[in-house]
Amino acid sequence: MRTQISETKNRAGETVQIFGWVHTVRDQGSIKFLIIRDVSGLIQVVVTKKQKKASDIAKTLSLESVVKVVGLAKEEKQAPGGVEVVAEEIEVLSAAEPELPIPVVEKTGETELPKRLDWRWIDLRKPENRLIFQAWTSMERAFVDYCGSNNYIEIHSPKLMSAPSESGGELFEVKYFERKAYLAQSPQFYKQMAMASGFEKTFEIGPVFRANPSFTSRHDTEFTGYDIEISFIESHHDVMAEEERIIVAMLSEINKTSGNEIKKVFGREISVPLIPFPKLTLARAKEILKTLNVPSETENDLSPEEERKLGEYINKKESHEFVFVTDYPKEIRPFYHMRHKENGNLTKSFDLLFMGLEITTGAQREHRYDVLLNQAKEKGLHTEPIQFYLNFFKYGCPPHGGFGFGPSRFVMQALGLNNVREVTYLYRGVKRLEP
Amino acid sequence: MRTQISETKNRAGETVQIFGWVHTVRDQGSIKFLIIRDVSGLIQVVVTKKQKKASDIAKTLSLESVVKVVGLAKEEKQAPGGVEVVAEEIEVLSAAEPELPIPVVEKTGETELPKRLDWRWIDLRKPENRLIFQAWTSMERAFVDYCGSNNYIEIHSPKLMSAPSESGGELFEVKYFERKAYLAQSPQFYKQMAMASGFEKTFEIGPVFRANPSFTSRHDTEFTGYDIEISFIESHHDVMAEEERIIVAMLSEINKTSGNEIKKVFGREISVPLIPFPKLTLARAKEILKTLNVPSETENDLSPEEERKLGEYINKKESHEFVFVTDYPKEIRPFYHMRHKENGNLTKSFDLLFMGLEITTGAQREHRYDVLLNQAKEKGLHTEPIQFYLNFFKYGCPPHGGFGFGPSRFVMQALGLNNVREVTYLYRGVKRLEP
Repeated sequence: MRTQISETKNRAGETVQIFGWVHTVRDQGSIKFLIIRDVSGLIQVVVTKKQKKASDIAKTLSLESVVKVVGLAKEEKQAPGGVEVVAEEIEVLSAAEPELPIPVVEKTGETELPKRLDWRWIDLRKPENRLIFQAWTSMERAFVDYCGSNNYIEIHSPKLMSAPSESGGELFEVKYFERKAYLAQSPQFYKQMAMASGFEKTFEIGPVFRANPSFTSRHDTEFTGYDIEISFIESHHDVMAEEERIIVAMLSEINKTSGNEIKKVFGREISVPLIPFPKLTLARAKEILKTLNVPSETENDLSPEEERKLGEYINKKESHEFVFVTDYPKEIRPFYHMRHKENGNLTKSFDLLFMGLEITTGAQREHRYDVLLNQAKEKGLHTEPIQFYLNFFKYGCPPHGGFGFGPSRFVMQALGLNNVREVTYLYRGVKRLEP
Repeated sequence: MRTQISETKNRAGETVQIFGWVHTVRDQGSIKFLIIRDVSGLIQVVVTKKQKKASDIAKTLSLESVVKVVGLAKEEKQAPGGVEVVAEEIEVLSAAEPELPIPVVEKTGETELPKRLDWRWIDLRKPENRLIFQAWTSMERAFVDYCGSNNYIEIHSPKLMSAPSESGGELFEVKYFERKAYLAQSPQFYKQMAMASGFEKTFEIGPVFRANPSFTSRHDTEFTGYDIEISFIESHHDVMAEEERIIVAMLSEINKTSGNEIKKVFGREISVPLIPFPKLTLARAKEILKTLNVPSETENDLSPEEERKLGEYINKKESHEFVFVTDYPKEIRPFYHMRHKENGNLTKSFDLLFMGLEITTGAQREHRYDVLLNQAKEKGLHTEPIQFYLNFFKYGCPPHGGFGFGPSRFVMQALGLNNVREVTYLYRGVKRLEP
């Protein structure tokens, strides 16, 4: 019966079986110290000459081999975790080649990122990398539980589409039998369809595809999106309020399951934000940034630099890591964002910044067929390929809104990391399709 | 403040606001009866001439328009649910075109399936269709919760790959900048990678793509898969035991949240199966089918007909809706299935049948690099395109196994439906990319 390494401390005095990877080997001649690693932690294994067979095996053990160790667990103040196992048997379940392409034990940053990504499965063995995905697992579970507890209906919308869901650019084309299909750039159209279907509240977790040729630390060609859409809202403010509750649920769960370890490993305190989050119109944000002398490229949007500075400003002023920026001008928003009644140039839309990085775009949607059609035409869209979408609004569709949320950016910020590649299981970019 | 329709019965004597779709209209001249539908249910709204404005609006109301109704909730034994709303105000939030392309209120089977799929968002308004996705939501939440409570790490593996993950056929090709990519036919390679990364237990929920030209009721070109992979197993029996626990968790949750409604609507009693499930080797299954005079196409596999008959046989004999069939011959299993030590022609693999339909394929995987390489060569595979996968086994990889699970087939069987198109939010097939 296997004992998890983290449980061994409760089994002192007993013979235990542990399974794991050979993390380090320290050979002191007659005695060898192995550190064995499993998903729960690290433990020291002592191999003495008395156990001839185990000692012979230990002599030839390559780093990262997978072993089974049977031995006596005993308290040992010198050992990490205060417990060690005195080996009686060692069995090699999978021998690693003697030369590792990248080390598992190293100082952060020693091996360059591209090389780490080439050997991603070895890179992920580092306990700090495993922790990222444990935090992700908690975040996603909290999201699913929040929705499950609040009468959401989950959808899995198709990723194969006959027409682009967003603007025409950055689209991957698929050979689909005798015709062409496209990979969904977002579930936008289909989550709105759920509103036309009377699901009232819906969510989706799934991949989104962007044929984006850029190489920044924030971009990839495939990433996971969380999407929400809710009906019978009064305005985009209802959508923001829902997002606040979801973020609180997610950060609470991350904190509960991994907060201590995150603090130890990444030096980040996971703080659960107060509700409501600070909110600013884009116009007001621009005024503030002006007073801070942050250069502006356009009046219509925030540059990454402006987002960072605004995040800092709010954090300083209101001790809050989040800020909603609302009411973007229609020029930079998609045709389906609803516009303000009092000012048709402004949309009922928002972005959410988390520590100065955009993690969400949301809006109330235009649900009135005629208005929507006009807005599409005004944007110069060919309406024929999206007629199937426009039809959703012809046979009764409630007022609704929603948002898309970037979990990788969110985890990146929460853990204080600086590249989405670090929080993506297997990053995909222009030049990277492997492993 | 909105009152959900299902809550109205607790608000008798109060003025309520309800929001929903006009399900039916019955015009008796001076008095009109509307049935309004929201996600929670149906309610009768009475409109009398006394309320001139409301009555005028009711006169022109098209079916499926979205309305807000303000009025007094009162007990009324004649009304469905024992409560009705006497309208004071009616506001049309979204007028439906007078001619609906397909009806929402109809006898099952009245409109043919292809037409229903053309207008899927209207089809999904039927309360029985909504119920399918509520059951799905419960199932998935139970799956995520099971994994979350048992130290699984969730992954979202890329759907864009440089090489096929399974056999070469049925592959969708993507134009990927200056080269080609392929859509993942399963997360097989990447969930095994998580084992090489020491995640020990991992799960994934995501789309899988199959360029399958068939038109059966069980096939589609894109569907949702649940995947599990666990390390340090003794054999495929550990994997089956894990699947049993997961299925019990899922059916329990479906039963808890929607059991009564499913019974009412689909006439199906959701029964939570006993553990362990019945298990048969393929050889034994074949013997049984022979005694039942079921025609056999091949000794190496079960035909859909054989699966059905075997399911019936087990259900009759053991009162169990599930049966594992194990130990398939190597010829029909992928190269990465581990083979029995005692009989190299048989794999340590299984299928799971639910009421006579295959919903899972699983196995212990071959984790020994040399053996795996030989098995790949024996199958005639070119090893170069899958070298990135083979490399996972070079630097220490524990014994492991897992399974893929088809949630749409599972829901279809649990609810007694007969076509995956019914349980798929938006079905994708050879001829269907829209809506």
